[in-house]
Amino acid sequence: MTESITDRLNYYRDRVDKALLQHLPDTEHTGTTLEAAMQYATLNGGKRIRPVLVYATGKALGADPDVLDVPACAIEYMHAYSLVHDDLPSMDDDDLRRGNPTCHIKYGEATAILAGDALQALAFTTLAISLKDKLDPSVIINMMDELGRASGIEGMAAGQAIDLQAVGQTLNLEQLEAMHRCKTGALIKASVVLGATCAHVTDDALVANLRTYGDAIGLSFQIVDDILDVVGDTEILGKTQGADIALNKPTFPSIMGLDGARAHAHQQRDRALAALENYGVEFDELRDLASYIVSRSH
Amino acid sequence: MTESITDRLNYYRDRVDKALLQHLPDTEHTGTTLEAAMQYATLNGGKRIRPVLVYATGKALGADPDVLDVPACAIEYMHAYSLVHDDLPSMDDDDLRRGNPTCHIKYGEATAILAGDALQALAFTTLAISLKDKLDPSVIINMMDELGRASGIEGMAAGQAIDLQAVGQTLNLEQLEAMHRCKTGALIKASVVLGATCAHVTDDALVANLRTYGDAIGLSFQIVDDILDVVGDTEILGKTQGADIALNKPTFPSIMGLDGARAHAHQQRDRALAALENYGVEFDELRDLASYIVSRSH
Repeated sequence: MTESITDRLNYYRDRVDKALLQHLPDTEHTGTTLEAAMQYATLNGGKRIRPVLVYATGKALGADPDVLDVPACAIEYMHAYSLVHDDLPSMDDDDLRRGNPTCHIKYGEATAILAGDALQALAFTTLAISLKDKLDPSVIINMMDELGRASGIEGMAAGQAIDLQAVGQTLNLEQLEAMHRCKTGALIKASVVLGATCAHVTDDALVANLRTYGDAIGLSFQIVDDILDVVGDTEILGKTQGADIALNKPTFPSIMGLDGARAHAHQQRDRALAALENYGVEFDELRDLASYIVSRSH
Repeated sequence: MTESITDRLNYYRDRVDKALLQHLPDTEHTGTTLEAAMQYATLNGGKRIRPVLVYATGKALGADPDVLDVPACAIEYMHAYSLVHDDLPSMDDDDLRRGNPTCHIKYGEATAILAGDALQALAFTTLAISLKDKLDPSVIINMMDELGRASGIEGMAAGQAIDLQAVGQTLNLEQLEAMHRCKTGALIKASVVLGATCAHVTDDALVANLRTYGDAIGLSFQIVDDILDVVGDTEILGKTQGADIALNKPTFPSIMGLDGARAHAHQQRDRALAALENYGVEFDELRDLASYIVSRSH
């Protein structure tokens, strides 16, 4: 019997949730609320799409699941830190995240900034120390480089800076996509690449195709996010619906209309599927994910 | 003719200032002010005490100066990020740093937070990619682990959280030292350790002694900082004199009095020198640094 994609997603989410807890500091470490804030920011019922991509890519290529736990956690810590900082009053000023008060609302702004900072460091140290006996050190270094570039001035931080500057501006589709390729796309692509790296993939064409796949699902994920911000329900979304409009942010629907944005998301799904067309049934889970991402309601 | 310690400091500062510029993104990369803010936060005429320790330790042990440039830069990016975040309104709320407006005063709070975030990522990627052909990959991973632990929940971020919680509290000497060992000590110690690592040091006793040396000069550096905050001149310090008192922060002078704090700084210098007593003249620069740190006026 074939498991449904929902079953697989639930399995991966449970798996990474357990793994995430292992690397987080216990709550008594400093005698402050910093550790609690780090846990709160990480163990929050997130969709775990990035860890899912690490696992699904690694599984398609025969990687050891215990090895995959490590980049799955590292990338999710990195993602969690970025959400905490993006929600801050001086950034997107969001009070609600996944149905709960944002980290700075619950723990105060200073602790939220520090929790994000410490989660970024944890992402790198988790990768550095947890795979020493399992992967070649030069492979681990390549993974840290990929993660770092996806997070810093070539990735997430750059994307957020462009996003903040874009408030109230008119962007064309190319500019909007360039922004999202940095802000969310780079880390989603890195999830696919790190999953493949754990399987010792050396086929450059395969890596290039996986990067295209990651790029396409990264964009489709963001397009659907923008659509849900317009049509979604705050209760289902777990965050304030209409936040982009309230912030006067350029979005795919604001540029292309709702129908245009939906069509564009499907084009990106097709591009993701096309990148995998020369590969076998072991890539079916990645194919299912590409379709799942454009059909999700939250 | 022996160079004075001041000449050596100036040489190392010039060297790291040139190296720091090489890894920073150029200012046109994202079309935002993020890169300018990263440069502003880093290239600010800082004392560069951490890079100096990397170079001086590596030199004592015969490391290649070109290799030492890399951890010197990585640690200084990490330090620069921590200053930007510590100065934020929700943290220490400082307007002045090294005689100039702090990063958030000049570029706004959101950009300052992102510049700090991107500098942290840059610290790790600089270490990951710049030594690939020069050091064994497992050595590089150990360096990244050391840097990460000195920066996150076991180091700098923890120390800042404890520091923020300590405002208005009475700490005893042990608690104050524990806080500073995290907040500034861990990265200063890491500077010494990374310098030694570049020289392929495998003598555990030597590494332990260097850690003691780093711990002692880290504390003496902080004690002198606290003393200068009381007796220093804002113009010479380049930051607001009396800031600790204004924030009602516990300091070494507030616990031990000025004379007690001065005596304690000298004790730490003596502890640093004692840790090096079994080693030869090649360690004289590190000895001179231990003395310089307690005698500095800014």
